[in-house]
Amino acid sequence: MEKMKDLAYYNGRITAINDMMIPANDRGYYFGDGIYEVAMVFDYKIYALSDHLDRMESSARQLRIALPMPKEEIGKLLSELVLKMESSCQFLYWQITRGTAPRNHLFPGDGVPSNLYIYSKPWSGVQMSDEYRVMTVNDTRFLHCNIKTVNLIPNVMAAQQAKEAGCDEAVFVRDGFVTEGAHSNVSLIKDGVFITHPLDNKVLPGTERKHMIRFCGQLGIPVEERAFTPDEMAQADEIIISSTSHPSMRVKMLDGKPVGMKNPELVKKLRDCYLAEIGR
Amino acid sequence: MEKMKDLAYYNGRITAINDMMIPANDRGYYFGDGIYEVAMVFDYKIYALSDHLDRMESSARQLRIALPMPKEEIGKLLSELVLKMESSCQFLYWQITRGTAPRNHLFPGDGVPSNLYIYSKPWSGVQMSDEYRVMTVNDTRFLHCNIKTVNLIPNVMAAQQAKEAGCDEAVFVRDGFVTEGAHSNVSLIKDGVFITHPLDNKVLPGTERKHMIRFCGQLGIPVEERAFTPDEMAQADEIIISSTSHPSMRVKMLDGKPVGMKNPELVKKLRDCYLAEIGR
Repeated sequence: MEKMKDLAYYNGRITAINDMMIPANDRGYYFGDGIYEVAMVFDYKIYALSDHLDRMESSARQLRIALPMPKEEIGKLLSELVLKMESSCQFLYWQITRGTAPRNHLFPGDGVPSNLYIYSKPWSGVQMSDEYRVMTVNDTRFLHCNIKTVNLIPNVMAAQQAKEAGCDEAVFVRDGFVTEGAHSNVSLIKDGVFITHPLDNKVLPGTERKHMIRFCGQLGIPVEERAFTPDEMAQADEIIISSTSHPSMRVKMLDGKPVGMKNPELVKKLRDCYLAEIGR
Repeated sequence: MEKMKDLAYYNGRITAINDMMIPANDRGYYFGDGIYEVAMVFDYKIYALSDHLDRMESSARQLRIALPMPKEEIGKLLSELVLKMESSCQFLYWQITRGTAPRNHLFPGDGVPSNLYIYSKPWSGVQMSDEYRVMTVNDTRFLHCNIKTVNLIPNVMAAQQAKEAGCDEAVFVRDGFVTEGAHSNVSLIKDGVFITHPLDNKVLPGTERKHMIRFCGQLGIPVEERAFTPDEMAQADEIIISSTSHPSMRVKMLDGKPVGMKNPELVKKLRDCYLAEIGR
C-alpha cells in the first residue's frame, strides 16, 4: 500500500486529515466531552507509548468514559497506523469522546460506544530550545487540569495572548503559585535541585515531567515536587518548559526580563538522557 | 418543499440532525473552541431572539471569535430555518466555532472563517414543574462561566451525578455560595423578594433570569442581585431553577430535604408573565 503524507482515523475509517468528517452529534463537538493524548513517533516507534496509554486510561476513568477498545488494542492500532506514514518522525494525536448521540448533558448510556479519533502528521524532529520567552497569566481554568480533556478554551486564549506578546508560551499562576504552561509543564533548576509542581488537580501529569524526574533519579539530581512562586521562578538557575512535542525548552525571558540560563550543564545532562532513550 | 422532522445546518449545508457530518478539523471538536445558544420556538417564532443574538455576540467577542456573518443575518437565517420544520414548537440550538484548521492552540488567522452549526428539533411545549429535586455539588468550573462556551465537561459530570442521585439538576456551590445550576440559573423568593446571583464570571447571564427580573419589575416585586448561601437557599420560600428550555422549575427537594413551595402565588405571577409573552 502506498504510504500516506498524513492520516486520520475515526472509528475504523482512514482518510487524509483534512478529509476526515465526523458526525456533528459526536459529544466532542458540542460538549468537548472527551480526552486526548499526543505522542512523538521516532523511527516509526511511539516514544513512551505505555505512559500515554496509562494516562489516557486515567483521564477516561476520571470522566467515566469507557474506552472504545482495550488499552492494549489501542496501542496496537496506533503502532500499526504510524507504519502507514511516509515520514518516520511523526506527531501522533488521539482523542476519545463520549459517543455520538443527540445533545443531552446526561451520559448517552451503555449502548453508545465512545469514539476514537486519531491523526498523525510528519514532525520535524526533536524540539529543544535555548531561546524560550514566556509570560505569566492568571490561571482561570477549571480544577480538573490533571485530566487531559479537550475543554481547552483557556489554554487556547492564553497561548494566543502569549504569542501576541512575542512569547512562546504562557505560564499560569493561581493563588500566587505557578501551576503549568498553556500546553506544557514548568520546572525549575535551583542550586542543583529540580523543582516542579506536585501532581494534583491543578496540573497535567506530563509525560516529559515524569521522564525528567526519572532522569534526575538516574543522574543523582535531587527532586522537589512542590509549588513555587513567580518570584522563585524568576530567580531560578533554569526554567524548563516541557511537553511531549517540545520536551526541553529553556526559558531566557520571563515577562520581558532575562532569567535562568545559569546551569546549562545540568540541562544538557537531562537532554542527553532523553536523546539516548529515543536513539538520537 | 416538504417539511423536515428535524434539521441541521452547517455552513450552508442542510441535513437531518443525525446525518450532519463536520470536519474533524473543526476547532470545536478538539478544543471545544466555540460558543452556543439555545432558543425556544413557539408557533414558528423564536422567543427572545434578540436576547440570544446579543449574548451570542458577547460570548464570541470575549473569546475573540469573529461571527461568520452579521448578527442580524444569523437571526434571519435562524428564523428561516425554523419554518422548514414540521413542528411549530422547537428546541433551536446554534454553535459558532473558531474555524476549521490543523490543530494548533494559536488562532488560525483572519483568513479562516468561523463555523456556524445549527440544529432544530421538535419540542414538547413549555416545561414548568412543581416537582424539581436538586442536589448541591462543588463548583470546580473555570472562571469564564459568563461565556456560553461548549467547554462543558464539569456541567456534564454534575448533571449525570444529579441524575444518579435521583435529582433533576445539580446546583453548584463555590466558596460557600450558590452560583448556578449545571444547565440553569438558580433564584430564590424570600419574604416576597426575588434573589439571584449577580452577573459576573461565575454565572451565565441566563435569558430566563433576565426575563424574570423584568417580570418582577412589571409586578412590583423587589429584586436583589446577590450571592446566597446553600443555607439561605434551604430556608427560601421558593427556589426557582430556570433555563431557556425549562423556564420555571420549582424545587421541592434539596439534598434530600423538603424545601420551598411556600409562595405559589408569586411563582404563578411570574409564570403568567412568561406565558403571556409567548402567547399561551
